[in-house]
Amino acid sequence: MEKSAASPPSPPSLSDKLLRGDLMAANCPSREVLRHITSRWGVLVLIALSQGKRRFSALRREIGGVSERMLAQTLQWLEQDGLVDRTAYAVVPPHVEYSLTPLGREAEEKVRALADWIETRMPLLGRPDPSARDVAVG
Amino acid sequence: MEKSAASPPSPPSLSDKLLRGDLMAANCPSREVLRHITSRWGVLVLIALSQGKRRFSALRREIGGVSERMLAQTLQWLEQDGLVDRTAYAVVPPHVEYSLTPLGREAEEKVRALADWIETRMPLLGRPDPSARDVAVG
Repeated sequence: MEKSAASPPSPPSLSDKLLRGDLMAANCPSREVLRHITSRWGVLVLIALSQGKRRFSALRREIGGVSERMLAQTLQWLEQDGLVDRTAYAVVPPHVEYSLTPLGREAEEKVRALADWIETRMPLLGRPDPSARDVAVG
Repeated sequence: MEKSAASPPSPPSLSDKLLRGDLMAANCPSREVLRHITSRWGVLVLIALSQGKRRFSALRREIGGVSERMLAQTLQWLEQDGLVDRTAYAVVPPHVEYSLTPLGREAEEKVRALADWIETRMPLLGRPDPSARDVAVG
């Protein structure tokens, strides 16, 4: 009869490693996705879309301070990564809506957890004003 | 006897709102913290420091492609936000170590969840190469 004692956990196989990104590696394409999701507006676009489909103008109103150009660029990145769907309705005037894909909803859960943490921890975090910081962080 | 029926959930009080950041608001200081944590190198510095104290040179080796200038800038942001501790030992030659603060460990948990998700989902995410993308996302 074959010995069936549990062997120690084996290191990840080559195929596992090939199927997984490595963010610490400079040339791994996962770096690009991280850059898009965590871009200046990527986090906020994902969170805004978690409420449901949105038109461009509604997203712009919701996300304070985003420029038309940067919102368009961010939506394009997220669409290329497969996180956001762009649906154009054949009506006059043209009507375009953005929504999260199933992968986008997964990504949104992760960034929302980070965003929630930042918002609730804000009183404890250092302030841009250095005089306030000395008191808060000291 | 006083009526003790549960009242409907009340909206957040003004003091609650003042104690919580609002990332959708253009002028909320939480935006600055989000920018630091999700900066090009912020996520990777937090994750690298989750393994324990690190010297500057060790961090540079671990995080592929980061420049000396950008690593120094990122560490300074995270230190100002109260997420990273910088300890200088009075020895010759000078010896400086970086480590996560308790708040930094909380932040690291959130960004690691996002990083893990990106690394494992990488095969499903769009590729920078547009011809590969049509196949993967289509």
